[in-house]
Amino acid sequence: MQSITTDSYTIHFNQQAIQSLNEYLDEASHSSLFIIVDENTYEKCLPDFMASIKGDHHFEVLEIESGEINKNIQTCVNLWQALSELDADRKSLILNLGGGVITDLGGFVASTFKRGIDFINVPTTLLSMVDASVGGKTGVDLGPLKNQIGVINQPKMVLIISEFLQTLEERQLNSGFAEILKHGLIQDANYWNDLKEVHDFSNLDEIIGRSVAIKNKVVLEDPTEQGHRKILNFGHTLGHAIESYFLINQEKETLLHGEAIAVGMILEAYLSNELLGLKKEELEDITATFTARYGKIEFSETDIEHILNFLRYDKKNSHGSINYALIREIGKPVIDVQIPDHLYAAAFTHYKDA
Amino acid sequence: MQSITTDSYTIHFNQQAIQSLNEYLDEASHSSLFIIVDENTYEKCLPDFMASIKGDHHFEVLEIESGEINKNIQTCVNLWQALSELDADRKSLILNLGGGVITDLGGFVASTFKRGIDFINVPTTLLSMVDASVGGKTGVDLGPLKNQIGVINQPKMVLIISEFLQTLEERQLNSGFAEILKHGLIQDANYWNDLKEVHDFSNLDEIIGRSVAIKNKVVLEDPTEQGHRKILNFGHTLGHAIESYFLINQEKETLLHGEAIAVGMILEAYLSNELLGLKKEELEDITATFTARYGKIEFSETDIEHILNFLRYDKKNSHGSINYALIREIGKPVIDVQIPDHLYAAAFTHYKDA
Repeated sequence: MQSITTDSYTIHFNQQAIQSLNEYLDEASHSSLFIIVDENTYEKCLPDFMASIKGDHHFEVLEIESGEINKNIQTCVNLWQALSELDADRKSLILNLGGGVITDLGGFVASTFKRGIDFINVPTTLLSMVDASVGGKTGVDLGPLKNQIGVINQPKMVLIISEFLQTLEERQLNSGFAEILKHGLIQDANYWNDLKEVHDFSNLDEIIGRSVAIKNKVVLEDPTEQGHRKILNFGHTLGHAIESYFLINQEKETLLHGEAIAVGMILEAYLSNELLGLKKEELEDITATFTARYGKIEFSETDIEHILNFLRYDKKNSHGSINYALIREIGKPVIDVQIPDHLYAAAFTHYKDA
Repeated sequence: MQSITTDSYTIHFNQQAIQSLNEYLDEASHSSLFIIVDENTYEKCLPDFMASIKGDHHFEVLEIESGEINKNIQTCVNLWQALSELDADRKSLILNLGGGVITDLGGFVASTFKRGIDFINVPTTLLSMVDASVGGKTGVDLGPLKNQIGVINQPKMVLIISEFLQTLEERQLNSGFAEILKHGLIQDANYWNDLKEVHDFSNLDEIIGRSVAIKNKVVLEDPTEQGHRKILNFGHTLGHAIESYFLINQEKETLLHGEAIAVGMILEAYLSNELLGLKKEELEDITATFTARYGKIEFSETDIEHILNFLRYDKKNSHGSINYALIREIGKPVIDVQIPDHLYAAAFTHYKDA
């Protein structure tokens, strides 16, 4: 597959990814090499990945525990200390091998260690391939507040090796597919229609390429998220609040990111219908597509109240108001939409009755 | 005094500083305003500073404990949480009112909160006025490792209000003056000669302006510290190691930054004489000037051993070797000099015998 170039680095795929990494390691002459993994990528991805690296490059492996719950400052402190003890210096390189937790957190650790060292992202989940691979967002959660602490900083390159998807469970692939469906909804009705037909996840190369290209185009137009880039938040304002609430509530099973934003997209499609005239048929199409793929989650009145409390903290807030990215039709986004309070209950009712 | 413009912001002085801040606050329309202080600047600087702000601007005051020992990630976590609880958002502004600890740490907190919000530095010590006000270095210590975690990020403006120097003890003014003397040594022999005559610290405006201009010139030539900017490290490689060792050693009185680099500059002037032919008379001039101003510190053999261990961690290290910025004559710096191990003991002997 063709490499995709962002404003400052290149995303390489499969064989080209391996080749580019080997060339880079030979040319760049880093003082020392580190690879951050979790227990899953340590077992399932690291051996193959290491085998593909040619020449005499020694990597120190730094393993963290998997899971969003570990995407926090304490994990960063542990890694910063490990790097210091292993004499990492300003010319060291960090390779982040894992899903969004590893690439977000590892990118932040690299961007802040000695005021910033080189890093390369090797996303191993569908979600991180299509979402975290473009845009330079790094960061960690602060308690239940997702990505509250972080910086925008670009990796040296991103390597997408789709073979790693074979190590994932169906549930995780499905979660990543929610971001892909979002790319259709916010940019390309044809892509959305194509995606609805996709039920076999055994070869997603073309789809990954299309989604990365869409995200790259959006980010290139607005690298610092002043305006247009906010369209990527479709489904995420309510989706993040739902995800945060399920993360800290001990009685709830944790939702994967894509599962949370699937609900968020149904709710925000409802708001789009109410406020921007998104056609009823398109709302029904979106609702049916997501509920068929992701099932339905039950929300009590108390749940909804707590979720709405989390909205206050959403980082896209500004001047006390919450700005949504919605769609006026499939493929046509609108940013900075504000929601009258009474519509929230109606949106959840729409979801419940779907 | 004339304002000084860096590549991305302006440093304003005294009356002009107050006026520029008032104009900025009126124009910029931030969603909320925060000011980070410590117990000293809360008491001695904040009342006057607040009185000079016109119009109806409400600042939330965030107070941290003073001292290098608190320049750590836990203090950042406390501030990030306080900002979250007070509904700070991406359009909030943080004003850092204090010495280097506050401007370094507050700059890092602002640069990483929700992936970066605006901040303004108002340095209140001589050291932070001439050193931390230019260059965009933000960060905190990791255990005894100084500035191990941080980013390069620029404030919106820097306000130097020299009146705040009247709140400082002589010892702190002296500490800041060591960085000023360094500016002479690395850039301008005439400035060095002028500075040797200065013993009255009651009006330092012109000197602050000259030093800020020198630092700005150096940083503009090399914003990301790839080469030339390293000259600012003169005295700091050994100075930082001494400072770190005194910081964690319970039996030692903590050294101020300037006191540590004063020793560092004598030691590194000795190395400059040994390796780069710095004239004996200039070495003696430097040694006499610093010992007259800063007295002498006693180092045991064990102290020296521990200090040399800290060198390993110095962030300017690369590929295992330690690169020094030295001077071949006063005003003429040389970067990337490596030191044969046997010279360290001789340098400390020179200091002891001075």
